[in-house]
Amino acid sequence: MENNIMLLCDIGHTSYHFFDGKNDYKKGVNTFIPEIIQEKVYYICVNVKILKRLKKLKNWINIEPYIDKTQFYQTMGIDRIIASLSINNGVIIDAGSAITVDIIKDNIFNGGFIYPGMIAMNKCFKSISSNLNYNFNFSIDLYNLPKNSQNSISYGYLKGLYLEVISYNLPIILTGGDALKFKTIFKNATVDEMLIFKGMKILIEANK
Amino acid sequence: MENNIMLLCDIGHTSYHFFDGKNDYKKGVNTFIPEIIQEKVYYICVNVKILKRLKKLKNWINIEPYIDKTQFYQTMGIDRIIASLSINNGVIIDAGSAITVDIIKDNIFNGGFIYPGMIAMNKCFKSISSNLNYNFNFSIDLYNLPKNSQNSISYGYLKGLYLEVISYNLPIILTGGDALKFKTIFKNATVDEMLIFKGMKILIEANK
Repeated sequence: MENNIMLLCDIGHTSYHFFDGKNDYKKGVNTFIPEIIQEKVYYICVNVKILKRLKKLKNWINIEPYIDKTQFYQTMGIDRIIASLSINNGVIIDAGSAITVDIIKDNIFNGGFIYPGMIAMNKCFKSISSNLNYNFNFSIDLYNLPKNSQNSISYGYLKGLYLEVISYNLPIILTGGDALKFKTIFKNATVDEMLIFKGMKILIEANK
Repeated sequence: MENNIMLLCDIGHTSYHFFDGKNDYKKGVNTFIPEIIQEKVYYICVNVKILKRLKKLKNWINIEPYIDKTQFYQTMGIDRIIASLSINNGVIIDAGSAITVDIIKDNIFNGGFIYPGMIAMNKCFKSISSNLNYNFNFSIDLYNLPKNSQNSISYGYLKGLYLEVISYNLPIILTGGDALKFKTIFKNATVDEMLIFKGMKILIEANK
C-alpha cells in the first residue's frame, strides 16, 4: 500500500492539502498554481472554481468517480465519504467549522449527523444573549451538572454529543482542525489528521 | 393556595405576562402602562428599564428578594430559579430563544445547562453553510441514524439533548414558546405554560 511517489491532495475552500506519502503540507487556494506540478496528483475537491481549473490538467486525477455512492447519501460531502472508507469500525468525528459524526460498522456506513463547530456554536450562544458570550470549557466534568454560566453552555454544547458518540461503543477517531480540543472530552479517542488520505489511498488501490 | 385576587406578573424583554389565578394574558412592554393597575401585583422582572419604573409603584411587589439564592448560582436567570421552585422532582425544559434545562431532585436544584433555542440553532447551521439551511424535523426517529441533510442537522440538534434529558429518569416538564415542538421528541413530557406562576405562588405563600 505504501507508495511515496503518489501525491494526494484534498482541496477545500481555503487550501490545497497535500500528502506525499511522508509529509503533508498546505497551500492557499488563491496563491497556489496547480499547473506547476509535474507528478500525478490524485485529488478530491469541494471547491467548484478550483475543480474547473483542475479538469484541464491531465496529471490531476479526480478520484470522486471511483466511489460507489450507493451506501452514502446524495448530499453527503465527499470528505466525509472518503474518511468513512478509511476505517472498518468506529465513530469518526471531523471537528471543523461543522462537526460531522459518522458511524461505520463492519465496513458499512451506518449513517451520521452534523453538529455545529466550536466557533459557530460560540457565536450562536452570543447571538442569544451577551450573557452567554463565553469560550467553551473543554475541561468540564460532564458527570457533574454545572452551576455557573460558562460551564452551563459548555455542558450544553458537549454533554449530549458525548453521550451520543459513546453510545455506539466503537473506537472514536478524531480529525479536523479542532480534533485536539475534543480529545479532552473523548479521552480514549485516536487523533488522526491523515484520515482523509488513508481513505483516498484505499480508494485508489481498489480502483487500480 | 388558590387565590383569585392575587395578580402575578412575569416581565421579560418583550412583554408583561399576567396571571389572575384563572387566566393569563400578555401586554407589550412598550405600550402597557403599569400605573393603571390598582390591585396588588406580585412580579419578577428581567427588564432593567421596566424594573426602575415599577420600583416607584407601591402596589407592585418584586418577589425576587424572597428567594434564598444559596442553592442556585449567581448569574442564573430569575425565571429559571422560580420555575425550579414549582416542582419537587423533574427535569424542566424551558424552550425559548435559549433552552434551559434544570434538574430538581427531592426539592433540591441539582444544576442545569443551556442549549441554543430552535431559531438560534437554525441560524447557526445556516451560518456554517447554505447547504445546512433546513428547518428541523421534530418528527425524526432518534433511534435511526439519518441519511439526508435535513435529518442530519435535526438529529445533531435533538439527539444529544434527548439522551441527556432522559438519563435522569425523572418526570419531564416542558415550558416556553417552543414547548409543543419539543413535546414531539419528549413524548411523555408534561407541557406546563403556567410553571413560572406556580413557582411564584409557592414563593409568595412561603413568605407570608
